[in-house]
Amino acid sequence: MNDRLSAQMGFLLEADRLKSVLRATTLADGSRVENSGEHSWHLALYAMVLRDQAAPGVNIDRVMRMLILHDLVEIDVGDVPIHSANGAAHGSAEVLAAERAAADRIFGLLPPDLGSEFRALWEEFEAAESPDAVFAKSLDRVQPVMQNLASGGGTWVTYGVTADQLESRVGVKVARGAPTLWAWVQEKTTAWFAAR
Amino acid sequence: MNDRLSAQMGFLLEADRLKSVLRATTLADGSRVENSGEHSWHLALYAMVLRDQAAPGVNIDRVMRMLILHDLVEIDVGDVPIHSANGAAHGSAEVLAAERAAADRIFGLLPPDLGSEFRALWEEFEAAESPDAVFAKSLDRVQPVMQNLASGGGTWVTYGVTADQLESRVGVKVARGAPTLWAWVQEKTTAWFAAR
Repeated sequence: MNDRLSAQMGFLLEADRLKSVLRATTLADGSRVENSGEHSWHLALYAMVLRDQAAPGVNIDRVMRMLILHDLVEIDVGDVPIHSANGAAHGSAEVLAAERAAADRIFGLLPPDLGSEFRALWEEFEAAESPDAVFAKSLDRVQPVMQNLASGGGTWVTYGVTADQLESRVGVKVARGAPTLWAWVQEKTTAWFAAR
Repeated sequence: MNDRLSAQMGFLLEADRLKSVLRATTLADGSRVENSGEHSWHLALYAMVLRDQAAPGVNIDRVMRMLILHDLVEIDVGDVPIHSANGAAHGSAEVLAAERAAADRIFGLLPPDLGSEFRALWEEFEAAESPDAVFAKSLDRVQPVMQNLASGGGTWVTYGVTADQLESRVGVKVARGAPTLWAWVQEKTTAWFAAR
């Protein structure tokens, strides 16, 4: 009867599966690992709360939309922890190709106008070049750092991460979109690694 | 050093606890109950996908912000299932007072400007009078219906809900903000209850 609405609702049903994609990072209290659905919610809240850390001209509503969508491809590909395989797995050509195929399938469930719009937002996020995407990436990278600090080390312990590795894999990217924020966080990570 | 940023990050850490607030509704596959963090993410995605179901003039970005914030008070109060206590617990004076105290505490963690802004968005959502809030409420009510349909009945079975109760507790409120959407969903719920 209503093909457009059926496609929209079908996409929303499929999206539910993101709640079953598990990340390496735990909740702040360390009780269990986080899933990519609740992680995406937390990031949207980060964007609302930390908008004064963004460069002038960043559109926080677009940043939120990107963050709500950014992990949907993990329904097919799973989460690839940033520190896994000594930092080599995340962003590998193989993972990128699989994520692209996932985007074809998942955004392809939507009516074409919405599918194209969401796909473009996801591509923009992945490219990390526009000011909105650079800020969104900063939040995506800083949230697990805060979770690890709260839980007593988290994935830094799991993967034997050094302070230098954290700086090169994460710090540089947080600082690119939110330099003041990274300076604030770095004080805490430096203390954590020094105390090991 | 930076009191404002410390307050912002303290709020974001506290917000993490919403991921441990359990709802009565399950994931679509019935594998476990949903938590209020991932539920809030799903609703923000509902808003993005179903914006053409909103009345003219509804601001979808504001709707998304409301939906990201709307359940934070549950960190202190817990989720009160809509069909529990034969529909009487949700929205009781006792629950409303507890949620108000939770809002004082939780939004009070933020710098005053952000705290006031978020509190006002939450109050607007709760009042369900503005067009943005009415549409946000419609999404908050329709998502568990879709989860129940997908999982084979969910909380309708748990609480012995009838088709009439679903209509009065849920359908009327979905239809208020999204009448075409409710007509589409109602066809499916009618079939489900008829087949019982």
